[in-house]
Amino acid sequence: MSIADAIEKAKKVKFVVLDIHGVLTDNTLYYTQEGTKSESFSLHDVFGIKALMNSGIGVSFLTSKVGRDVEQVAKIYGVPPEMLWGSSAKMARLTEFQNASGYTDADLCYVGDEMIDLGVMKRVAFSVAPADGSEEAKAVSDYVTAAGGGKGVVRELAEFILKAQGKWDKYIEQFQ
Amino acid sequence: MSIADAIEKAKKVKFVVLDIHGVLTDNTLYYTQEGTKSESFSLHDVFGIKALMNSGIGVSFLTSKVGRDVEQVAKIYGVPPEMLWGSSAKMARLTEFQNASGYTDADLCYVGDEMIDLGVMKRVAFSVAPADGSEEAKAVSDYVTAAGGGKGVVRELAEFILKAQGKWDKYIEQFQ
Amino acid sequence: MSIADAIEKAKKVKFVVLDIHGVLTDNTLYYTQEGTKSESFSLHDVFGIKALMNSGIGVSFLTSKVGRDVEQVAKIYGVPPEMLWGSSAKMARLTEFQNASGYTDADLCYVGDEMIDLGVMKRVAFSVAPADGSEEAKAVSDYVTAAGGGKGVVRELAEFILKAQGKWDKYIEQFQ
Amino acid sequence: MSIADAIEKAKKVKFVVLDIHGVLTDNTLYYTQEGTKSESFSLHDVFGIKALMNSGIGVSFLTSKVGRDVEQVAKIYGVPPEMLWGSSAKMARLTEFQNASGYTDADLCYVGDEMIDLGVMKRVAFSVAPADGSEEAKAVSDYVTAAGGGKGVVRELAEFILKAQGKWDKYIEQFQ
Repeated sequence: MSIADAIEKAKKVKFVVLDIHGVLTDNTLYYTQEGTKSESFSLHDVFGIKALMNSGIGVSFLTSKVGRDVEQVAKIYGVPPEMLWGSSAKMARLTEFQNASGYTDADLCYVGDEMIDLGVMKRVAFSVAPADGSEEAKAVSDYVTAAGGGKGVVRELAEFILKAQGKWDKYIEQFQ
Repeated sequence: MSIADAIEKAKKVKFVVLDIHGVLTDNTLYYTQEGTKSESFSLHDVFGIKALMNSGIGVSFLTSKVGRDVEQVAKIYGVPPEMLWGSSAKMARLTEFQNASGYTDADLCYVGDEMIDLGVMKRVAFSVAPADGSEEAKAVSDYVTAAGGGKGVVRELAEFILKAQGKWDKYIEQFQ
Repeated sequence: MSIADAIEKAKKVKFVVLDIHGVLTDNTLYYTQEGTKSESFSLHDVFGIKALMNSGIGVSFLTSKVGRDVEQVAKIYGVPPEMLWGSSAKMARLTEFQNASGYTDADLCYVGDEMIDLGVMKRVAFSVAPADGSEEAKAVSDYVTAAGGGKGVVRELAEFILKAQGKWDKYIEQFQ
Repeated sequence: MSIADAIEKAKKVKFVVLDIHGVLTDNTLYYTQEGTKSESFSLHDVFGIKALMNSGIGVSFLTSKVGRDVEQVAKIYGVPPEMLWGSSAKMARLTEFQNASGYTDADLCYVGDEMIDLGVMKRVAFSVAPADGSEEAKAVSDYVTAAGGGKGVVRELAEFILKAQGKWDKYIEQFQ
């Protein structure tokens, strides 16, 4: 897929669905000897997520199970609780959202990194994979970010979408 | 060892034994000031381990001592508790397993990264080391993964074995 | 901006204000499953901050909210509690400090990495960004460190400023 | 300094003193929001430290303050408690040890990474710095490891010393 095609697809995005593991994280799990799990996220993505939402593009997290860590991260990123979707049936959860919201596949961007994401990535209009996603995910994606998972994928994607839609300059005006 | 030879050996693998430190982890230990230990694992390996097991190839973890962290990781990876082997006498533990299961050295793949693994690596039919394993481990291995320890060694190995055995395309069909 | 210009600006620095996230850290947030946050800092920066302060140049941390982690880090770095500034209105906090201290924009160096820092970076006489700062921050900075955030940005900056001011050799004499 | 000179110096080493931060660690400090500190160590160094000690070369840790984390690491590395030296007066602590043990500067190897280590590095017969040590530490060192701090510095050094002393092949025989 060419960059020109990716830009055309990015122009039509109204809502961005983010896989968490491998996209907002680098797929690393930390475990203490007592079995407590940690994961890492990036503050780079705060800017990206806020830029999208403040420009009228919705954002949700889609992962098999939403834990306290994701809730805390969502607070910092500004993603509202109803946009944290815990479901291992990703296709069904997406359909449910579409029925409730009126968005269609043509309006959606999905970011995923693994085999399990291929179905959704082929379904939505604009699919994105991080630089260190699986070969299979990158092969079906319309755009591969320069950033790896957990290192600013959404910041980069937000800039790509908002520039395609002509909204970037207006958004960053407030910081100049 | 050539890739062609490695593929021949991978064809015969029926069971994969994984060293933990340096293979499922990057050999890094995190300690709090109170002395609590943490280690990191990769979600990339979940896909690899499930792909192996769902294709009829057994998987076990072999390390000196199995803690709560490894138990938690094994749950996420889908490795059953009886396949978590805590023993510093790696050769003896392997023999014990072979006596109980009927598997022989010809059926086994072992992944290790350090001096302590050399004996087992020379014994089994197909031995593998991560990219950042010790020079000595890499020297006796039949295959060196492109991934370093804790960064997807088993995902890469699973694809290598299942492709050699002609099982990969069938396994990933469900995700297409 | 040329290095010669950066040296001229560094000569006049009397006080260094440091953004925390992306400068003293690499923008990574670690979360446990219970929602406890961690961040990482570098001991490299201890040397830099002590070198600045012992050479008569003040140092403060400016971030939206000062938590226990920053307080602990400040202790190790030798930054006094009154120099930990928790405010999301960065411009106003800086003006407040200037009114109280008598320092003007001409005396200040600010290190930042994101859009939110652009206003302050354009205002002070000498602005600095880490190697992995946002393109926008690097574009308005007078000096970009070779180090990324959390990897010794302040150590490198301290050497740059103190060499420009002819104070470096004298400071490191004690270690020879 | 040439490699040939470094080998000559390594031949005479009877005791290795290790700085902790930047040598056994990568200088990174992790802090929770409650102010609890963590640091990371490498299992690669376990092999190196045990190889040195089992070949008759003593090993000690020298750092300003020995906490629970270092005590736990020392247990895993096999370093006895009396070899954990907590002192910010590194030169004096070394003299004290020499008086008690009979070792002289000619017998000692010291590994350090920062300005604070320069005095000891110049004093002992064989001084070593990690790849990512400060320029000043590397400039006065007899040998710079390919490994960075916390990534196997001692494993690499142990092999270098034991090969210089003709003890390496004998030590690794047990693993063949």
